[in-house]
Amino acid sequence: MKPEHKELMKARRRNIQLTVSYDGTAYNGFQRQKPPQIAVQNVLEEKLQLICGDTIELAASGRTDAGVHAFGQVVNFFTDGRIPVSRLPRAVNSILPPDIAVVEAAEADRDFSARHSARSKTYIYRILQGEVPDPFERNYSWHIRRPLNLEAMGECLRLIQGTHDFSAFRAAGGPPVSPVRTMYEAALEREGRIVTMKFFANGFLYHMVRNLVGTIANAGMERISVQRFREIMESLDRQQAGATAPPQGLYLYHVDY
Amino acid sequence: MKPEHKELMKARRRNIQLTVSYDGTAYNGFQRQKPPQIAVQNVLEEKLQLICGDTIELAASGRTDAGVHAFGQVVNFFTDGRIPVSRLPRAVNSILPPDIAVVEAAEADRDFSARHSARSKTYIYRILQGEVPDPFERNYSWHIRRPLNLEAMGECLRLIQGTHDFSAFRAAGGPPVSPVRTMYEAALEREGRIVTMKFFANGFLYHMVRNLVGTIANAGMERISVQRFREIMESLDRQQAGATAPPQGLYLYHVDY
Repeated sequence: MKPEHKELMKARRRNIQLTVSYDGTAYNGFQRQKPPQIAVQNVLEEKLQLICGDTIELAASGRTDAGVHAFGQVVNFFTDGRIPVSRLPRAVNSILPPDIAVVEAAEADRDFSARHSARSKTYIYRILQGEVPDPFERNYSWHIRRPLNLEAMGECLRLIQGTHDFSAFRAAGGPPVSPVRTMYEAALEREGRIVTMKFFANGFLYHMVRNLVGTIANAGMERISVQRFREIMESLDRQQAGATAPPQGLYLYHVDY
Repeated sequence: MKPEHKELMKARRRNIQLTVSYDGTAYNGFQRQKPPQIAVQNVLEEKLQLICGDTIELAASGRTDAGVHAFGQVVNFFTDGRIPVSRLPRAVNSILPPDIAVVEAAEADRDFSARHSARSKTYIYRILQGEVPDPFERNYSWHIRRPLNLEAMGECLRLIQGTHDFSAFRAAGGPPVSPVRTMYEAALEREGRIVTMKFFANGFLYHMVRNLVGTIANAGMERISVQRFREIMESLDRQQAGATAPPQGLYLYHVDY
């Protein structure tokens, strides 16, 4: 957004904050794309314009990649529209496609930014473990046929807790920001054949969760040891780490402000 | 199947029984359709033919309607193919679309019929209750915005347990069979916003579960009383009962032999 354009948006009376849930299967990620590509942002902006009556430009807590889902993506936008926030979710949900839903809407302070005000985020990553595929999980988890050593995976998750340089798990192409992040919590739980990993940190680098999961899964499949995982992390070298885990297991779960 | 054709099938050496799970969203039900309609059976038969080397005709425990899902549909077919049953699921799953999966395969007795040998079946029906839609549930539950009186719904479910004439919940167009069925168990449980009803009976009439759910949901929304539900059931009159609940909440869960 050009600075003068940003001022124009800020001249509007209201700053509205939305919590949005979406199934990312059908979209080219969250961030606005040029047609014929369709991103969640394109659809949300188009429908919010119909409700609010002015051109909407969303700012989001962060982008999500193609196929990645969200339970609690947070966005904000400036508008002169008059719809009360209490009526906004139902109004916009009635015209949104059913794979996107506005869960909550609130008036925000003028200086609130879904992107810049975020203090921490939580992602979850789901793995389906076992020989047999599950039709209901095909778009919602990473299917791994081999047995998983959950104890080894849990040890890797404990190693990444705290403040670390996560360069080994950072993909090329992201914004030039510090690679040091504080992981407040990294844990896993199993329920039936589903292994869910949770990552709660003050921020995430580009592809960081999927690169972590790809490498931790290697420890789970005993292709690498926990000691080797530690070495990879300390190498700060992306070439040492495992492949990026597939997008459909990843969910932006929650954003704290 | 014409009788002589049936004999031809039975002349084959093996009778193989499969347990199949599918997401019914993309299909015109289970039962074979003429293209361009596609049913789960079309896809399964086509892929099994590639694996087994002869023309496959499946018999199933029962049909499921468009949009209805299965965790444990059971089918059988006669073949001269030589693939061991231990290798069959992986072989066929590798060429099936990811919304259909063979969960188990076994050699069956020559006189086993997935359709005629079934002793009982279990269906489940899932409702998403609450104001806000859930993108991840759009194809997998019936979204009801109004509050649900679960106690009233539970009372209706207790009333249908036992042996009854279920004519009031039978759709036109099904096979001309006795409307008397024994419901061994009918119960519900709630987990978060999801209400799951379970129906375990020696057999089901055409649309019986969805007609029961539509009427029980009316009791849950307090449009009708439990006493009225009992009267509807005793009327044996389909016109008295509620609308058929939508297909996407229904799952063929298990078949007993």
